[in-house]
Amino acid sequence: MAFAPPGAGYDRAITVFSPDGKLYQVQYAQEAVRRGLTALGLKVEEGVVLAAEKKLVASRLVEETSMEKIFQIDDHIGAAVSGLIADGRVLIDQARLEAQINRLRYDEPITVYALAKRIGDIQQLYTQHGGVRPFGVRLLIGGVDDGVPSLYETDPSGVVAAYKCQAMGREAQTVINFFEEKYNPNLRLDEAIRLSVEARARVVEPPLSTEKLEMAVIPVETARFKKLSQAEIAKHVKAVEKSQSPKE
Amino acid sequence: MAFAPPGAGYDRAITVFSPDGKLYQVQYAQEAVRRGLTALGLKVEEGVVLAAEKKLVASRLVEETSMEKIFQIDDHIGAAVSGLIADGRVLIDQARLEAQINRLRYDEPITVYALAKRIGDIQQLYTQHGGVRPFGVRLLIGGVDDGVPSLYETDPSGVVAAYKCQAMGREAQTVINFFEEKYNPNLRLDEAIRLSVEARARVVEPPLSTEKLEMAVIPVETARFKKLSQAEIAKHVKAVEKSQSPKE
Amino acid sequence: MAFAPPGAGYDRAITVFSPDGKLYQVQYAQEAVRRGLTALGLKVEEGVVLAAEKKLVASRLVEETSMEKIFQIDDHIGAAVSGLIADGRVLIDQARLEAQINRLRYDEPITVYALAKRIGDIQQLYTQHGGVRPFGVRLLIGGVDDGVPSLYETDPSGVVAAYKCQAMGREAQTVINFFEEKYNPNLRLDEAIRLSVEARARVVEPPLSTEKLEMAVIPVETARFKKLSQAEIAKHVKAVEKSQSPKE
Amino acid sequence: MAFAPPGAGYDRAITVFSPDGKLYQVQYAQEAVRRGLTALGLKVEEGVVLAAEKKLVASRLVEETSMEKIFQIDDHIGAAVSGLIADGRVLIDQARLEAQINRLRYDEPITVYALAKRIGDIQQLYTQHGGVRPFGVRLLIGGVDDGVPSLYETDPSGVVAAYKCQAMGREAQTVINFFEEKYNPNLRLDEAIRLSVEARARVVEPPLSTEKLEMAVIPVETARFKKLSQAEIAKHVKAVEKSQSPKE
Amino acid sequence: MAFAPPGAGYDRAITVFSPDGKLYQVQYAQEAVRRGLTALGLKVEEGVVLAAEKKLVASRLVEETSMEKIFQIDDHIGAAVSGLIADGRVLIDQARLEAQINRLRYDEPITVYALAKRIGDIQQLYTQHGGVRPFGVRLLIGGVDDGVPSLYETDPSGVVAAYKCQAMGREAQTVINFFEEKYNPNLRLDEAIRLSVEARARVVEPPLSTEKLEMAVIPVETARFKKLSQAEIAKHVKAVEKSQSPKE
Amino acid sequence: MAFAPPGAGYDRAITVFSPDGKLYQVQYAQEAVRRGLTALGLKVEEGVVLAAEKKLVASRLVEETSMEKIFQIDDHIGAAVSGLIADGRVLIDQARLEAQINRLRYDEPITVYALAKRIGDIQQLYTQHGGVRPFGVRLLIGGVDDGVPSLYETDPSGVVAAYKCQAMGREAQTVINFFEEKYNPNLRLDEAIRLSVEARARVVEPPLSTEKLEMAVIPVETARFKKLSQAEIAKHVKAVEKSQSPKE
Amino acid sequence: MAFAPPGAGYDRAITVFSPDGKLYQVQYAQEAVRRGLTALGLKVEEGVVLAAEKKLVASRLVEETSMEKIFQIDDHIGAAVSGLIADGRVLIDQARLEAQINRLRYDEPITVYALAKRIGDIQQLYTQHGGVRPFGVRLLIGGVDDGVPSLYETDPSGVVAAYKCQAMGREAQTVINFFEEKYNPNLRLDEAIRLSVEARARVVEPPLSTEKLEMAVIPVETARFKKLSQAEIAKHVKAVEKSQSPKE
Repeated sequence: MAFAPPGAGYDRAITVFSPDGKLYQVQYAQEAVRRGLTALGLKVEEGVVLAAEKKLVASRLVEETSMEKIFQIDDHIGAAVSGLIADGRVLIDQARLEAQINRLRYDEPITVYALAKRIGDIQQLYTQHGGVRPFGVRLLIGGVDDGVPSLYETDPSGVVAAYKCQAMGREAQTVINFFEEKYNPNLRLDEAIRLSVEARARVVEPPLSTEKLEMAVIPVETARFKKLSQAEIAKHVKAVEKSQSPKE
Repeated sequence: MAFAPPGAGYDRAITVFSPDGKLYQVQYAQEAVRRGLTALGLKVEEGVVLAAEKKLVASRLVEETSMEKIFQIDDHIGAAVSGLIADGRVLIDQARLEAQINRLRYDEPITVYALAKRIGDIQQLYTQHGGVRPFGVRLLIGGVDDGVPSLYETDPSGVVAAYKCQAMGREAQTVINFFEEKYNPNLRLDEAIRLSVEARARVVEPPLSTEKLEMAVIPVETARFKKLSQAEIAKHVKAVEKSQSPKE
Repeated sequence: MAFAPPGAGYDRAITVFSPDGKLYQVQYAQEAVRRGLTALGLKVEEGVVLAAEKKLVASRLVEETSMEKIFQIDDHIGAAVSGLIADGRVLIDQARLEAQINRLRYDEPITVYALAKRIGDIQQLYTQHGGVRPFGVRLLIGGVDDGVPSLYETDPSGVVAAYKCQAMGREAQTVINFFEEKYNPNLRLDEAIRLSVEARARVVEPPLSTEKLEMAVIPVETARFKKLSQAEIAKHVKAVEKSQSPKE
Repeated sequence: MAFAPPGAGYDRAITVFSPDGKLYQVQYAQEAVRRGLTALGLKVEEGVVLAAEKKLVASRLVEETSMEKIFQIDDHIGAAVSGLIADGRVLIDQARLEAQINRLRYDEPITVYALAKRIGDIQQLYTQHGGVRPFGVRLLIGGVDDGVPSLYETDPSGVVAAYKCQAMGREAQTVINFFEEKYNPNLRLDEAIRLSVEARARVVEPPLSTEKLEMAVIPVETARFKKLSQAEIAKHVKAVEKSQSPKE
Repeated sequence: MAFAPPGAGYDRAITVFSPDGKLYQVQYAQEAVRRGLTALGLKVEEGVVLAAEKKLVASRLVEETSMEKIFQIDDHIGAAVSGLIADGRVLIDQARLEAQINRLRYDEPITVYALAKRIGDIQQLYTQHGGVRPFGVRLLIGGVDDGVPSLYETDPSGVVAAYKCQAMGREAQTVINFFEEKYNPNLRLDEAIRLSVEARARVVEPPLSTEKLEMAVIPVETARFKKLSQAEIAKHVKAVEKSQSPKE
Repeated sequence: MAFAPPGAGYDRAITVFSPDGKLYQVQYAQEAVRRGLTALGLKVEEGVVLAAEKKLVASRLVEETSMEKIFQIDDHIGAAVSGLIADGRVLIDQARLEAQINRLRYDEPITVYALAKRIGDIQQLYTQHGGVRPFGVRLLIGGVDDGVPSLYETDPSGVVAAYKCQAMGREAQTVINFFEEKYNPNLRLDEAIRLSVEARARVVEPPLSTEKLEMAVIPVETARFKKLSQAEIAKHVKAVEKSQSPKE
Repeated sequence: MAFAPPGAGYDRAITVFSPDGKLYQVQYAQEAVRRGLTALGLKVEEGVVLAAEKKLVASRLVEETSMEKIFQIDDHIGAAVSGLIADGRVLIDQARLEAQINRLRYDEPITVYALAKRIGDIQQLYTQHGGVRPFGVRLLIGGVDDGVPSLYETDPSGVVAAYKCQAMGREAQTVINFFEEKYNPNLRLDEAIRLSVEARARVVEPPLSTEKLEMAVIPVETARFKKLSQAEIAKHVKAVEKSQSPKE
């Protein structure tokens, strides 16, 4: 029977080591992220920018707003998600809960690092215990604590790392290469937004539809997470297009 | 022995990742939906329309009413189901319970989104923990909150997305293609019902028996879920037939 | 070793999806029913009739009464069972308990639908959780609520559907075909009983032993489940034979 | 390695369905009974007779009394066991406990049917839940309730059926065939005992050692379970031999 | 890889039925006993004798006393063990606990049968539930209740049987054959001890080292378990040798 | 299907023995460490030095500080980690908790040995119980108790050993060989730091970027864990380069 | 893929019987001990001597003290360990806890036998229940109770045996053969120590480094466990060398 073999090997596993010291289930979960939509984050002195591709195919029948990949966690923290959407929602919900608990217990906002570590701990737990599979998702968590912007990424293995810029998903490497070349921590926030738009222009086919792009900022000045409206995004896209047209 | 091989591969699994980052059990559950009867939803300014094919073969011995694929969840919310019937009933019961709990706890109706997300969370849970299989079912959940209509779909992976129009089941793509072409958010509710009838006409063989068709509306005006009677459906079908006969 | 292969494939499974979206364990359980003895139900305005073949081989050493396939659930509800006998008994016991609980909790009899749904929910549960197998049994549950007769079938997947007539077990299709042709909802109760006897005559070899036939009615008039005595059954069989002899 | 294959297939199973709707573990347990020693039961108007072969090989070093296959459950109920001895003992203990509980809770003796059903329920439970195997044993449970004798058999699948006569174990079919021919419900109790002895004579090699035969009666008159002494058994055996010698 | 196949088949099992109705894990556990050292028991009117081979190879570095295979359970009960030593110790401990509990609860000594049955029940439990393996051990439990000696054997399947004489372990059959020929229930206790010594002489190579022999008696007169000293054993061995030398 | 075989063998295991007495899952976890970045520890009379390679590839977009491999556990204890980063973080968190608990419970700092043993116990536990995998990480735990410096290593099997010098990760053996030759317990702390820098110079390609190097000391004098700043590290690297240039 | 087959067979097992009545996981654990470092124990009238090889390869960077294989359990009891180090530590900790509990509960020191049996019971438990693997370790437990020295060994199967002399690990047989020839229970304690040193000289290559040798005594006189210092060991080694040089 033709369909028996594919199910035979991995449909019954728990996460254990292979002889070469790898955790296959974790690597397969990483693969799930690598096939997800591209998301990116950028940290400059004035704040953090998050950007994400909202969906793969445009259908005017889908409500754009429900495809969101960038979520507010607390007043001062937001996160972009790449990978399995439903897994991401579970972690986002958990992140919001952790933020709330911190406010209740200590009467102060959770730090971006504490939140990222907590999410990483949950992801690690799902790689070491039987009866569950790892989360097939990465999060880019950005925020501002006491005037300091920070940007963390958590991955399916539970690793938590801080970045100036980072990208996840299918075109992550192209974006990272672009940032390696162009990034400057002294960019103003508007410039950082436009750098994100430019980075994204490298990985999508023109014309640059703004509908599929989702963006958010957490400025140091306000320490408030803010989603950019389609109009604001369009303005930045236009500015980028104008600045680029002479070059090309 | 001829029957040994088919059972060998997947009858003993928990949901884990394949090397290419996919969750096979979830994909197989999606396949269960793809083989189910077609259901669709449509949102216009005046409200939400749900329609579903009730059964595959007509037998005059079956009580039509017990074959229902569209269920009232709360006063203002209904849902159409596609896939495994018994799995759907479990989620519908859960949805009704969630709606009731919301009224008890907060003394107000649950929002359509909160309800859809709660169902999606249950579906996600069944994809990540051992000892259970995913739900082989999608739900189209429509309703009206504070005068705003909305329509969500949840799937076996736990994804929740908002739509203007959406279809599920074996003829979903044909219906979606039809909607892409014809849908207009400014349709009046009656026009939306007829568009649904037309969409369905694309996927069933003529003559268009109305017995196998089930329809419901949640008008913004009343914010009350209402099943259409066979007579009402017949009236709309007749209207569609009349309007189409000149064309063909 | 000749006996190793048959055990290799399915003796160690939990219920999960196959690549084509099917639940094999559920389908195998359906097969267990398909190999069971034939049972049927019939609903007319005056009430519900249940009939079942009691056993496969006649032995005068077996107590007929203990082979029963039709059970009283509550005053106003009865059920016929097809498939694994012991599994059926477990569900019948559960049904009686649910009926009793309803009377205790709400001080009123359970409705036929509520009871059927409750049994279907139990059957569904055994298809989605590990460590158990599905029930290898279908139930035809008939009864009268507030003067309205109804007839439901539950199956190993947990589906609950209402019927005017339905048959289960090895000769189900022959009986259903017969009913499709002959059934009329305005039959009087006695006529319905005889239609059942005729239907059964299609699937057993003559002469029509009445010993192997078990019958029960729930008349709307009394709303009381009543097993027919062997004498009553014999009378109906004789009537059928007389009416048929001219034809053949 | 010669011993690997036999263990490969079924040493790791839970009880699930095969594609043809069978429960292999249950069927294998039935096989365990089919290889057990023969036991039989007989019900006449004056009471119930139970008889069992005590052991396979005669050794004068074994205490006959400890090989028993017929057990008193309550004053008015006894049971013969066929199959795995230790499994049988577990069910016999459970039966005694159920009988005791009934007396404590309702202040009256348990009925033979209620007891048989309770044992059947336990046996069914072990066919549907993981982590256990079915009981490899059948019980013939005989007794007298309110002057009415009854005889039930429970099997590894959990089926409970009432019989006039029944036999279990390796020579069951021979005994049943004999009973089909000779049984008469109006036999006096002594005649029933002798019919049992005759039945047994068909399945053991002559001379008919009485040491390996175990018998008990529950007469309607006393409603008391009573083991026959070796002397009593010998007397019946002698009577049978005398009556048969002319014939052969 | 040479060692892979042997481990493939049975290293991952729970105890279930094979198609021919056998419980392999139980049979393998029986094999563990069959490879163990020989132990025997003998019951005469004056009491019970237990004897066991203490070890396979003689090393003067091992403390003989710690190799014991015969254990006191209560004042009036002792047991010999054959099979896996550590498994035996667990059951012996359990037996002692059961004896103590009986004294506490009922203020009287446990009967030999009640104790043997309790141990058999524990052994049966380990053959029917998953996640454990059967006990690889047999016990010969001897004792005196109210002046009556008795001797029971429990085995890995949980069977409990009473014997006049019984032997377990690798040379069990030779000993049993010897007993079949020589045993007489009217032997005096000293004669029974010597019969045991003679039986053992049939299964070990001469000269008959008394160091490897362990013996105990529970005389009816005292109803006290008593281990024989090496001197006492030597005396009996000498007596046997003397009595046998003329014959051979 | 090409990807089935790799998953077939080890994706479903618990940690058990192989025929040659090895625990494969533990050995595979050791392999995970062997592929990790190199870390080392050094103990001299004046204190303990820990050093670790922070990352594999330099990207200016990563925040160096978040890549840390050396962690403070308590005032007087620190640890370097090699292997799976997320696993290490879980153990580091546990170590910090143990240190805190010790202060709360006994009102005194935990000793370095007690802490190392506690971590080793957790690691052992994950090698002996089902449903979990071993930790893929080694820790080098250094600290000062009552003026005495000590350095322990824990590994995936749970072994805890004390060292004068030790190295872990991909270049561990080269570093150990270097220490075998050059180590002297009477080195002053500064000399020990420079010996670490030299050791590292053996395993990385020149030029010796200080950015990827992380160092910490726990001097006996202060008994305080202290991370070296990049400036301090650079100073030591420069000193080493100067001292080495004449030689090469 | 080359590494798949080795993992296929035993990486997923629980401890069950093989057809020849063996417990493979236990035998594999025994193999783990057989590959461990050699340890030995010796009991004479004046007390008990324990000796163990501390490590396989000499590295001056390892702290000798942390490699210990001989542990104090209570004032009067010590134990040598052979096999998996981390497993041994778990049992040693458990032994210390048992000793402490005994003092608290009964206000007296635990006997050597009670302690050894308790450890054996733990080891047996890990051979009979699923979800765990056996302990890959043997313990030689020596001590003095009321002036009586004793020496017990526990093994992975849970067997507990008393010895005059015993050895474990890779060179166990050579040491045992040596003891068989030379051991005398009337040796004075110093002579016993030297006999241990001589025994060890048979299994290691000259020159006899004393660094790798670890020794302890529990003299009857003091009933106190005492580790020998390197100086004391060296003195005994020198004495042995002197006494042997003439011979060879």
